[in-house]
Amino acid sequence: MATDVMQGKVETAEEVLSHWQGHRRLTRRTIDAFPEEKLFQFSVGGMRPFSDLAWEFIRMAVPIVDGVATGKWEEYKGEKPKSKSELLKLWDAETKKLDDKFKLIPLHRFSEVDKAFGQWEMSGLGTIQYGIDNEIHHRGQGYVYLRALGIEPPHFWERD
Amino acid sequence: MATDVMQGKVETAEEVLSHWQGHRRLTRRTIDAFPEEKLFQFSVGGMRPFSDLAWEFIRMAVPIVDGVATGKWEEYKGEKPKSKSELLKLWDAETKKLDDKFKLIPLHRFSEVDKAFGQWEMSGLGTIQYGIDNEIHHRGQGYVYLRALGIEPPHFWERD
Repeated sequence: MATDVMQGKVETAEEVLSHWQGHRRLTRRTIDAFPEEKLFQFSVGGMRPFSDLAWEFIRMAVPIVDGVATGKWEEYKGEKPKSKSELLKLWDAETKKLDDKFKLIPLHRFSEVDKAFGQWEMSGLGTIQYGIDNEIHHRGQGYVYLRALGIEPPHFWERD
Repeated sequence: MATDVMQGKVETAEEVLSHWQGHRRLTRRTIDAFPEEKLFQFSVGGMRPFSDLAWEFIRMAVPIVDGVATGKWEEYKGEKPKSKSELLKLWDAETKKLDDKFKLIPLHRFSEVDKAFGQWEMSGLGTIQYGIDNEIHHRGQGYVYLRALGIEPPHFWERD
């Protein structure tokens, strides 16, 4: 019995997107919580400043969705924002793209195994989850930067 | 068309468990990367030491699975480990329990909305995801502690 249940499907494509977009809203608030200069220069333990981490999320998100949707894996094209307002503006534009493009993923591509960016062999859903998890992981690091700066980070449980 | 696809289900219960257990293996390696004393005493920015974060993961994991499976939400019972070896031993025991109990979750409970621990109103899957995300989030903070100690954290992408 238990084994059959384990093969039951429990999450829709819409729920995956909604989960991701909830995290993106929280990440946006985390970016916004940094004072401009600290966003680009401050870090702990020799790690990358939070603007670099946010830039990594941008370079992964839409290219992952495009790759899962089409099977074509292309690096993100665009220039790294130089100010907090530029970064937030780009973040919002990519959020909109993610919303639109996610809906173009054919259902079978979520389970199909592909080599993401010619390198990472996973199911489409596995690659999407990797992108989400990577954002949660590095955003958590941004929370430490904020605490080290004496700034209260946004509530982790608020995703609206 | 696109709207129909978004209602398509893309993840099995088994994949959710497997994703979580992959993260738990990585968290175990993160615990193990800390020198004993630092695990219990070191942090950055006035945050909790990593042993406290790992203890939080333990207090959430199996109680969440029990709650989703049965509708009964009960706090974790047990004492906080006082050494790294005790913590790892408890981690392994809870991993085994998680594996066994997850398989007892009736399929309909993943989508059913419940009030987790009398407080958090979410679907069963939403509560499980919250537990996984919380582990990723705080483990990322442990990575900053390790870097600040001059210790290389485990590879984020290794989950075996």
